[in-house]
Parts: sequence; structure tokens; C-alpha cells
Amino acid sequence: VSAIDELTAEFAKLPGIGRKTATRLTYHLLKQPRATVVQLARAVQGVADRVGSCSACGNYSESDPCVLCLDPKRDPRVLCVVEEAFDIEAIEQTGEFRGLYHVLGGHLSPLDGIGPDELRIGALTERLNNGTRVEEVIVATNPSMEGEVTATYLRGVLAPVGVRITRIALGLPVGGDLGYADKVTIAQALSARREMSA
Amino acid sequence: VSAIDELTAEFAKLPGIGRKTATRLTYHLLKQPRATVVQLARAVQGVADRVGSCSACGNYSESDPCVLCLDPKRDPRVLCVVEEAFDIEAIEQTGEFRGLYHVLGGHLSPLDGIGPDELRIGALTERLNNGTRVEEVIVATNPSMEGEVTATYLRGVLAPVGVRITRIALGLPVGGDLGYADKVTIAQALSARREMSA
Repeated sequence: VSAIDELTAEFAKLPGIGRKTATRLTYHLLKQPRATVVQLARAVQGVADRVGSCSACGNYSESDPCVLCLDPKRDPRVLCVVEEAFDIEAIEQTGEFRGLYHVLGGHLSPLDGIGPDELRIGALTERLNNGTRVEEVIVATNPSMEGEVTATYLRGVLAPVGVRITRIALGLPVGGDLGYADKVTIAQALSARREMSA
Repeated sequence: VSAIDELTAEFAKLPGIGRKTATRLTYHLLKQPRATVVQLARAVQGVADRVGSCSACGNYSESDPCVLCLDPKRDPRVLCVVEEAFDIEAIEQTGEFRGLYHVLGGHLSPLDGIGPDELRIGALTERLNNGTRVEEVIVATNPSMEGEVTATYLRGVLAPVGVRITRIALGLPVGGDLGYADKVTIAQALSARREMSA
């Protein structure tokens, strides 16, 4: 196989990248200076070589514990539970959350053989029981069927721990268009309506 | 900089990939087995290390001349002139062309300082004059303003060579919708209309 075909095939394995886009990316790189291409190769290799995961929160990290878990400025009283490490990235970008995280590694999905033991739920209860100062657990699993099921399951498991358990709000996305929203979202936005202050 | 941020930044440099997609790609790789990630790194490095260009046609190649130029089954009497090596890939996929190629390396664009000397036009006339058996030159530059200007310029330059010069057909794209086509394309499709055989 030629180097061009090989790279195109590798690019096409990435999510959301079809054969046409993969080819375009390969040819784009061919037009770049060699150093640019080598830099990308090294960055990919770097992820393979340097990134592991934090044994406390489950986030990807180059150190264990990770930078977030070690940060003394983070509030250890609030723990945000997410499905994937990717979600942490998204929440961090809002700058609105200063607590710690816990990555489940997915959601409950019995049909795919993903039960509680396949997720980092045991690690979560352990973390809450072992003398940490967590007062509130924010369940930030996805607003999907599986995310809701997982959230409900977590509420049951965490109830005996005696911490406050909250769920992120579901409703119309900011900047969205009510007319184009799906009916489940609209129903949710209606039932979760809040009093407007004068 | 962390390995994750580094790779995200490199991905974001690729065309059509914004910060959000770059992050998604990085986290996708983080979830893959190490071998998969290393394979992508090697494929990128392979393009940097192994690919050069064909001195005859200007296509990217791991040998010089390239496989296409060396292929005895290709018809050396027809030469297809394209702007970019990427275009060869697209034409080859049709399986409709069995001649040889010539890559210009872009199109005329005086505002960007791209004149005839910046393109492989001299190499083209040289190729046609030096005892090759080319009988027809198909000008397959893009159906854009710049592609048309380049095509017209080539016609002028190639006229003295005494070969047949043709231009790929412009018209409605197959599978397209006349009602949604732009007026320039429709006008072109009308003026280039052909007799229907009974």
C-alpha cells in the first residue's frame, strides 16, 4: 500500500471523516512543509506515549492524580459525575464549575452488556465513603435515554451515602429556536419552568 | 502544553476541522487501543518520509517517474491537465480516463502573485515539444473563475504546439436539481446543450 493510501485509510477510521474528507486531509498534508507533517505525527504519538488516566477521577491525564484533582483551588465539596472524560473538557470551557469530577466511562446499556460493574460506579461510592468532603454530587450524564437511566440508577446507589444529589437542568438550548426544538425537549422545558423574578 | 492539547491544536490546523471537532478526534483516539494510535502516527510520518513528486507529471509519488507515468497500459496520446494532484485521485475514481496527467500546481491568480512561472506550465510545453506522442490535451482545471482564466491562458500557450485542446464539460451536476442550481451553471448547461440521439 502506498503511504498516501495508508494515511487516507487511517484518517477514514476517525469518526465523522469519510473517504472523501480523508483524501482531502491527506492531500492537504502533502502540500505542507515536512516539519508540519512531522509535528502532527509526533503529536499523535505523544498521545499514545504520554497520556494515561487519573486513578481518582478517571480523567485522561499525564500525571496521577491529574492536575484537576491536585488543584488546591478546586472545591472538593462538589463532585460532578460525567459519562466521558470528553465531557469534562466541555464543562471546563464554561468556567462555571470549580468542583471536582468523576468519570463513569460511559452509561448503563444492558443490551451492549454495560452494567454498573463496567462503569466506574464502585469507584464513585468508594470515593464518597472514604472520608472525602463531598457534600453535593451533580449528575451530569447525557440528556439521553441512557443518560437518564444511568442518572436514576446513580441516585439509588448514592442515596445511602447521605450527600445532596442534583441533576443538570434539561430544557431548550440557549440560542436555540423553540419552533425547531423536538417535542420531548419542549415538554421538558415546560415542566421544568421557573418563576421569573420581577 | 499537554499531549492532549498539543494533538487537538494540530488537528485544528487541518482544513474543515474546528476546535470542537479537533477535541472530539483527540478524545476518540484516547479511547482507542495504543496500537491504533501508533498506526495513525506512523501513517502521518510515512507521508512525510516516503512521498515525493513525479518529475514528469507533478503528481505525488513514492517513485520517480510515478506509477501512472510508468504504466504501459495508459494511453500517452491523451494528456489531462489538472490544477492539483488531488484532482487526479478524483478523475481516477471514475475509471473513465486512461491517459496521462499533468499537474499545474494551482491556477493563475495575479492578486496572490501566482503567474505562469509559478505553475508547471513551462514543464507542460516542454513535455509536449520533446517528442512525446500527445495528440490531445484535456484542460481539466476547475470550473471556477480562476480555473477558466487558467484554461484560456493554456489554450493560448498550447496553440502553437499543434495538438487538439479540449475542455471538460461544464453543466448541471448529475443527480443535481435544476431548481436549486445557480444561474451561471444553468446558463452554461443551456448554451452547451447537445443534440439528443433518437
